[in-house]
Amino acid sequence: MAEQLKASVAIVGAGDFIGSAIARRFAREGYQLHLARRDGTKLDGLVAEIAAAGGAATAHSVDARSEEAVAAFLQAANDDAPLELVVFNIGANVNFPILETTERVFRKVWEMACYAGFLTGREAARHLLANGGGSIFFTGATASMRGGAGYAAFASAKFGLRAVAQAMARELGPKNIHVAHLVIDSAVDTAWVRERITQATGAAPPADRLMEPESIAEAYWQLHRQPRDAWTHELDLRPAGEPW
Amino acid sequence: MAEQLKASVAIVGAGDFIGSAIARRFAREGYQLHLARRDGTKLDGLVAEIAAAGGAATAHSVDARSEEAVAAFLQAANDDAPLELVVFNIGANVNFPILETTERVFRKVWEMACYAGFLTGREAARHLLANGGGSIFFTGATASMRGGAGYAAFASAKFGLRAVAQAMARELGPKNIHVAHLVIDSAVDTAWVRERITQATGAAPPADRLMEPESIAEAYWQLHRQPRDAWTHELDLRPAGEPW
Amino acid sequence: MAEQLKASVAIVGAGDFIGSAIARRFAREGYQLHLARRDGTKLDGLVAEIAAAGGAATAHSVDARSEEAVAAFLQAANDDAPLELVVFNIGANVNFPILETTERVFRKVWEMACYAGFLTGREAARHLLANGGGSIFFTGATASMRGGAGYAAFASAKFGLRAVAQAMARELGPKNIHVAHLVIDSAVDTAWVRERITQATGAAPPADRLMEPESIAEAYWQLHRQPRDAWTHELDLRPAGEPW
Amino acid sequence: MAEQLKASVAIVGAGDFIGSAIARRFAREGYQLHLARRDGTKLDGLVAEIAAAGGAATAHSVDARSEEAVAAFLQAANDDAPLELVVFNIGANVNFPILETTERVFRKVWEMACYAGFLTGREAARHLLANGGGSIFFTGATASMRGGAGYAAFASAKFGLRAVAQAMARELGPKNIHVAHLVIDSAVDTAWVRERITQATGAAPPADRLMEPESIAEAYWQLHRQPRDAWTHELDLRPAGEPW
Repeated sequence: MAEQLKASVAIVGAGDFIGSAIARRFAREGYQLHLARRDGTKLDGLVAEIAAAGGAATAHSVDARSEEAVAAFLQAANDDAPLELVVFNIGANVNFPILETTERVFRKVWEMACYAGFLTGREAARHLLANGGGSIFFTGATASMRGGAGYAAFASAKFGLRAVAQAMARELGPKNIHVAHLVIDSAVDTAWVRERITQATGAAPPADRLMEPESIAEAYWQLHRQPRDAWTHELDLRPAGEPW
Repeated sequence: MAEQLKASVAIVGAGDFIGSAIARRFAREGYQLHLARRDGTKLDGLVAEIAAAGGAATAHSVDARSEEAVAAFLQAANDDAPLELVVFNIGANVNFPILETTERVFRKVWEMACYAGFLTGREAARHLLANGGGSIFFTGATASMRGGAGYAAFASAKFGLRAVAQAMARELGPKNIHVAHLVIDSAVDTAWVRERITQATGAAPPADRLMEPESIAEAYWQLHRQPRDAWTHELDLRPAGEPW
Repeated sequence: MAEQLKASVAIVGAGDFIGSAIARRFAREGYQLHLARRDGTKLDGLVAEIAAAGGAATAHSVDARSEEAVAAFLQAANDDAPLELVVFNIGANVNFPILETTERVFRKVWEMACYAGFLTGREAARHLLANGGGSIFFTGATASMRGGAGYAAFASAKFGLRAVAQAMARELGPKNIHVAHLVIDSAVDTAWVRERITQATGAAPPADRLMEPESIAEAYWQLHRQPRDAWTHELDLRPAGEPW
Repeated sequence: MAEQLKASVAIVGAGDFIGSAIARRFAREGYQLHLARRDGTKLDGLVAEIAAAGGAATAHSVDARSEEAVAAFLQAANDDAPLELVVFNIGANVNFPILETTERVFRKVWEMACYAGFLTGREAARHLLANGGGSIFFTGATASMRGGAGYAAFASAKFGLRAVAQAMARELGPKNIHVAHLVIDSAVDTAWVRERITQATGAAPPADRLMEPESIAEAYWQLHRQPRDAWTHELDLRPAGEPW
């Protein structure tokens, strides 16, 4: 574990897999981690794990669809130590035939996967501009690039989030803020995913077809380390064996 | 004016320019036109004009962000004569720096330009599936393809609408419904646009840089006429002199 | 058959299916057709058929990879009647694993599907600029948009052709030349294709999965008719039942 | 300088800027560098510099448009130490109006920027498959994504190279070969570029608008280090202040 830095990293959507792995990766570098999910108590284990490893992380219960909640969360993080990176990592993957896509689902998926991303990005920009720079990273998916059958709700939200990332990158790059969009083009290796694939195919997932959260987290770290004269706005990530 | 057909065309967002031109174009072919905008009384002139030319059009006051209102509108249209084409043509072009993009603007632009499009598309699909086929066309813009600086709200909504169109096309094509997305990559020739360009540049708009609504409407007509073994899902439209 | 126009249409790659259908479609409108393929005698039947229908078509034997041959062909067409449209329609679909893609195949596919397209486009531009305007259309394919496994040679050539079309469109649009790229995203309904699918799948091709050449030709005609304030540069074409 | 590895990195197009920087970066990690350019003697300074820093590099004179020359070069590199990474980095940026784009220019630019890339990629794959894996990286440019006016030749070649990269990635990923395409979306900071910008604009290039070769080289290094369950196929690189 590196020496503690006077800088914080905030993650909106610090879920069990990608979000947690990003938290561990940056904690290892000495950042103060501020982690938000709906029920912050679910982060207790992760916070304890990071502390045990010599890092620092704080859990927050945040409804990311609430402007006030997002603003308060990022303010608290920045008050602790100046924000250097904000990650928006909320997914909301659903698949319904168009006629069975209720307006409630369509709206909710958008609120979680796009609107909350806008709120997070805007409030992050406010702090990073004041701090003189930093990074804002958005987690994308296959559905960010392609509206597949059954994905009207999810792809619509993910396309919308990608537009937010692009608009912010173009406006904020010259102001020293690195905005990036990472397209995670595969399933992550979790017990639930393995089970679902096994149920669907009658066999264990083929080798080389699932991603480890740690490998994804490494990409966030490398992106954040890029020198400001060679920033990546968008990259895809998939395992060696993934058909695409 | 062609003989009256026992088929209707519904337009959500029957504005003064593109929407009106589409209405005139299909009325000329004999379709029963059903036109929706927030304040349907603003359509009186257009309805009268179409009637004077021997066509048939009905104005509806519809808040396209209301599921009930959209459903009722398309039901009324389909009750009049079976729907054959539904056009979603609501724009909501705004440009704000990210820090000045209020959550209210972000949400409202999405509700008008994306959520209403989803509602319209889904309800249209319901009728067209029952009718055995038909077309659903969405009006896109440059911001459907690119999140430019200042366009977080507008591009996010337009990207989202494009995803809806793609998902619907992939699901509904095999069910005989032609879903298309038209990318209008230029300003339309209106008094307001001419004035704005003149103010911004100190000169009248250059020749070949504005589109006539009638020319755009013709593209909708040609798309609708495509045989079902050669459907276009996406096309761009711009004037000869447009830089892109 | 319309009255004969004093205008010609030239097709480089006037093959048995799409190219022939485009020829028939424009001949029907009264254009003088000039048709090129490697062995022009293979066009005798088509030329006779068009003549029998009251149209006018001339066959040319042209190696489209020869600058002189392409230039001479378009000159001859323009001498007959001023060129109004030039279509480049040579395909060269091959699939090889990368290690089995010989340099000869890679080069030949490029020469036929990309280099010949550049020659055709440039020479077409020369005449159309002198004539005050006109259209240049390039036939694309799925491989124009995506480099699938085994398609290094074919996709490389088709991507390259798409770039030529874009560069020409951006330069020549303001000079009144409509450059378009049509992405044919499906197989065409021919005896050979039906047989191949039947062999590969053990069943006749599913309904709604093949395109009639006439339907594709109609798209070329509609594109050529677009008013100059609403030109399409790129559109896709696929049958209702095609998965994409 | 790290300990010398028994692994080599080959660079086709080891030019003065990006190629040289990549060479230095990987030499620093202990790789045996094999550098190819038309006139290998121009690499003497770089080879000496790397040796002085404790690294190992060998210069080769290679006409990358020759199948034999490319094969011999990669064979020699692999004979020295098993290849682990092959970089294709030849550019050929030219801009001509379409009518002034000679067939010679079009062909030459393709041979250098696309055909040579295919030869390099294929021969690299041959060795890496035998070695059990490795990386093949292609340097792209803005013109890989967009055919701008005047770029028919250059964009056509760069689009074509991108297709080769995609096809190879899809075929070879499951065989443990990481194929990536890096889109360099800005000018590199060189004396020549600074001069050209100053001549064109009458002022020194704005801050934050040029990339240091070292920063680009770092991206190649990070890509090569990606774990095989989270590979990036494509990423863009541009400086903070670049408009795009």
